[in-house]
Amino acid sequence: MKHNSYFDGKVQSLAITTSQGPATVGVIEPGKYSFGTDCEEHMHVVSGTLKAKLPGGDWKEYAQGQHFVVPPNVKFDVEATNDVAYLCYYKR
Amino acid sequence: MKHNSYFDGKVQSLAITTSQGPATVGVIEPGKYSFGTDCEEHMHVVSGTLKAKLPGGDWKEYAQGQHFVVPPNVKFDVEATNDVAYLCYYKR
Repeated sequence: MKHNSYFDGKVQSLAITTSQGPATVGVIEPGKYSFGTDCEEHMHVVSGTLKAKLPGGDWKEYAQGQHFVVPPNVKFDVEATNDVAYLCYYKR
Repeated sequence: MKHNSYFDGKVQSLAITTSQGPATVGVIEPGKYSFGTDCEEHMHVVSGTLKAKLPGGDWKEYAQGQHFVVPPNVKFDVEATNDVAYLCYYKR
């Protein structure tokens, strides 16, 4: 299983194959991070609360059980004030 | 953040602090595994389907969104026929 570590280990994820295609489950430690997509991503908050700013949008808060969709080939920002667990589906 | 790897990397997890206390998010690759608890564990299936056999019980299947509670200081068995993502709360 692939284990990924980003931002000095403050964001880490594990790769998984799901019935909805490839995904990662991961943890985001408190902080502000910028990510880039190469495909559409469906980001589900599994634990904690995550703020995200998508291109052309304002900061919005997503609680446990909520999700947001990020288009392909964009950069987006997230901010966590608590540990956040997420499940991210990659739609290729 | 603590990254744990068990069973030759077929089960891996990431530690997280939640509003409900310490937890791990992890992935279980297909296979049959035996785990031991040192505290009560609340095991939530986040993706996939997991079979579990608790002490004195029969094999039971838990789908995405379902959970089971494991008492402290016991051994229990799980079997995955697909990748399973889980969120496990430790109740100390």
